[in-house]
Amino acid sequence: MRLKTNIPVTEIAKIIQAKAIGHTDLMVNGINEIHKVETGNLTFVDVEKYFSKSLNSAASVIILNKEVPCPEGKCLLLHPEPFEAYNFLTKKYRPVKAWTETISGTAKIHPSTIIEPNVVIGHDVTIGENCLIHPNVTIYNNVSIGNNVIIHSGSVIGGDAFYYKTKPEGFEKWHSCGEVIIEDDVEIGACCTIDKGVSGKTRIGKGTKIDNQVHLGHGVEIGERCVIAAQVGIAGKTIVEDGVTIYGQAGLSKSLRIGKSATILAQSGISKSLEGGKTYFGYPAGEIRTVYRELAALRQLPDVLKKLKNILK
Amino acid sequence: MRLKTNIPVTEIAKIIQAKAIGHTDLMVNGINEIHKVETGNLTFVDVEKYFSKSLNSAASVIILNKEVPCPEGKCLLLHPEPFEAYNFLTKKYRPVKAWTETISGTAKIHPSTIIEPNVVIGHDVTIGENCLIHPNVTIYNNVSIGNNVIIHSGSVIGGDAFYYKTKPEGFEKWHSCGEVIIEDDVEIGACCTIDKGVSGKTRIGKGTKIDNQVHLGHGVEIGERCVIAAQVGIAGKTIVEDGVTIYGQAGLSKSLRIGKSATILAQSGISKSLEGGKTYFGYPAGEIRTVYRELAALRQLPDVLKKLKNILK
Amino acid sequence: MRLKTNIPVTEIAKIIQAKAIGHTDLMVNGINEIHKVETGNLTFVDVEKYFSKSLNSAASVIILNKEVPCPEGKCLLLHPEPFEAYNFLTKKYRPVKAWTETISGTAKIHPSTIIEPNVVIGHDVTIGENCLIHPNVTIYNNVSIGNNVIIHSGSVIGGDAFYYKTKPEGFEKWHSCGEVIIEDDVEIGACCTIDKGVSGKTRIGKGTKIDNQVHLGHGVEIGERCVIAAQVGIAGKTIVEDGVTIYGQAGLSKSLRIGKSATILAQSGISKSLEGGKTYFGYPAGEIRTVYRELAALRQLPDVLKKLKNILK
Repeated sequence: MRLKTNIPVTEIAKIIQAKAIGHTDLMVNGINEIHKVETGNLTFVDVEKYFSKSLNSAASVIILNKEVPCPEGKCLLLHPEPFEAYNFLTKKYRPVKAWTETISGTAKIHPSTIIEPNVVIGHDVTIGENCLIHPNVTIYNNVSIGNNVIIHSGSVIGGDAFYYKTKPEGFEKWHSCGEVIIEDDVEIGACCTIDKGVSGKTRIGKGTKIDNQVHLGHGVEIGERCVIAAQVGIAGKTIVEDGVTIYGQAGLSKSLRIGKSATILAQSGISKSLEGGKTYFGYPAGEIRTVYRELAALRQLPDVLKKLKNILK
Repeated sequence: MRLKTNIPVTEIAKIIQAKAIGHTDLMVNGINEIHKVETGNLTFVDVEKYFSKSLNSAASVIILNKEVPCPEGKCLLLHPEPFEAYNFLTKKYRPVKAWTETISGTAKIHPSTIIEPNVVIGHDVTIGENCLIHPNVTIYNNVSIGNNVIIHSGSVIGGDAFYYKTKPEGFEKWHSCGEVIIEDDVEIGACCTIDKGVSGKTRIGKGTKIDNQVHLGHGVEIGERCVIAAQVGIAGKTIVEDGVTIYGQAGLSKSLRIGKSATILAQSGISKSLEGGKTYFGYPAGEIRTVYRELAALRQLPDVLKKLKNILK
Repeated sequence: MRLKTNIPVTEIAKIIQAKAIGHTDLMVNGINEIHKVETGNLTFVDVEKYFSKSLNSAASVIILNKEVPCPEGKCLLLHPEPFEAYNFLTKKYRPVKAWTETISGTAKIHPSTIIEPNVVIGHDVTIGENCLIHPNVTIYNNVSIGNNVIIHSGSVIGGDAFYYKTKPEGFEKWHSCGEVIIEDDVEIGACCTIDKGVSGKTRIGKGTKIDNQVHLGHGVEIGERCVIAAQVGIAGKTIVEDGVTIYGQAGLSKSLRIGKSATILAQSGISKSLEGGKTYFGYPAGEIRTVYRELAALRQLPDVLKKLKNILK
């Protein structure tokens, strides 16, 4: 997430009662998890094996729980509980804001857009021209929708990331301070769930069409002119490039990249990144010819085993 | 879709500025995609390889983009963009009508039926006796519900078909002008999505029971006394005959026919039509004995391969 | 279900016009299906092969359709249609109560809890401290929610069991008179469906986190600190012990037991109970090493078959 105004790192150090090391004159322009950091951002790390990844990342300010040499041009904030401090800051600068109105007064909706009955729209939402939002849709805080977008009934846009910190006493909710961006000419079916990014953006590219009951996890990025059929699920942070077609009930694991114009057939289970331009099928999925060849062999297997046993006798 | 009143083909030719060839004194009684045409209907074709299918169909009036000899008893409408002209006509005669009221004044609901809070009901909906519509259900325009029907919360009945025309500049939405028919004694679970037909009907037969989170695509026809368990997805135009049982998370491709009293086990992936009276399983699915035999062989395969390698040495 | 006050078995016999045999001075304290009976409960049986199971169960009062010797300490109620009599009684003592208010006046909601717009809450619901119920959630009658629980938009808690009696003339709905219990610190994603028990309880244990579009059938029991990813479906009466992790789109059949700290990978199809502490994968699922070994063998199969055919020539 980007901060509304830049904040001196010393002010943040004071808020979380951390000791600042290094460039203490830095200004913080945003707060992000390690996967999404840019120059000027604050992030955190609390597991030693990830220290070097964080210290070498684009982040300018890092909350961490052990004193280490401060890299050039950065500022370190020493704190015994970096995750708690980070989570506290995201909540401070983008708080959980419950709705009281059905359509928040802070939502900016173009007058040409039609909002049908019982739609609920949260804070800091923008909706462009000529959209059609069908009944019983829920749009959470911090969602941005372009022009000519259709969203069907029952869909939930911008729900929290399914993201927890595992602690001895249970799971601690990682505050979702990200956004959802839906570009022009997108259509989203009924009863879909499109989560916001943990701190970054979930994005659906221009002209992409999504059928009913599709789930997109936090930070998923769908390119332009993709087609996603009913009941597909895509886990957090996976990137689907332009022109990809995904058939019904397929599932994609987290943090993958699906290449341009790939086709994923129905019910496929995708656990690895895929090259573009090819067709995939199966559980676990492979390129279609390979999988068909295996399935054809499997068809013959019972008879082959029978013959083999006779021969071995 | 059936037109409210028959319209002279010359009037339609004028509206879309098409040249009429053949029986120009015909009356048009309905507008339908090629899969659903009946005598008196208007349809379109814009790809030459489908010309003969269209010209030999039951349709009486065909919009097309090339002058060809007009078949006996038909009328051809020449237009440079047949799809656009067809889509324009479906929108003209069954326009997108947004809701403003929560329950449309045009809905006919029997007084014995219970509508719980926050239900939204569109235009031209009829609901019979003794139904129970639970909270937060959305019923789009042109849905017809019989007697003793129960619909659970969050379900969306009559959403648009997931159906687009692929064009160089992107996907163009095919206007959904069809209907949904739900017969007597049907129960539909929570968060189900039942799309309307593109131009025809989606139908759920008498006494059929549907669990939660089931998706039925456009034009799907479910017979009487079927049982469909949770999270099943059935793609557009597939026909499921009477007495079929489908277990959880199974997926059925489009345009199939599932024979009477067939049983489809959980998570099966059905890509071909199935004979009735049998049990199917697997991904891709087969008759259960065949698939179990293959799975049993697969169980043995690692050890068999090991032995084989030793022998071949 | 537990009755609000105990009722003499003679009174029940009179209501359903049954002949009482045995201990006619018993008091009935609850009405339950056979899987859930406790001492003092009334149940029914109408298929002779289950007579002995019912007569030897904890139930104190059994409605049945054939005169048999009455077991010690029990009371039998003779009735020609035991299911109808049983269903009649459950409806009498826990009737279908439609909503008229958006939030029922009988709901007990702690003042610290936030209910966002368009939430619908039924009768006899309790919600503890510091919960957050997002827009467009539906909570049916007889749901009990602890403290610090978050429920995301579009979810439906306490819908009816998908449970019917098959009769020659069709399916007869088994009246759902059970409950849902959600313990402290649970988070439930968007568009989830959590059905109530037929007569018993569906339970989600303390600290468990559930992602979007998850389905839990009637009477499912989820332990503490489980993690259930998006689009998982769990069929009726299955028990998931503490600390279990279930990845996206996995499906679990009914009446299973999943042992403590088991891990079930994405899209797995579970048709048998599983030992705790292990990782499972596949369709049908097995322990991960076994399944991977089979898949590795399948990868080699096409080439092995080719070689074999050459040798056999």
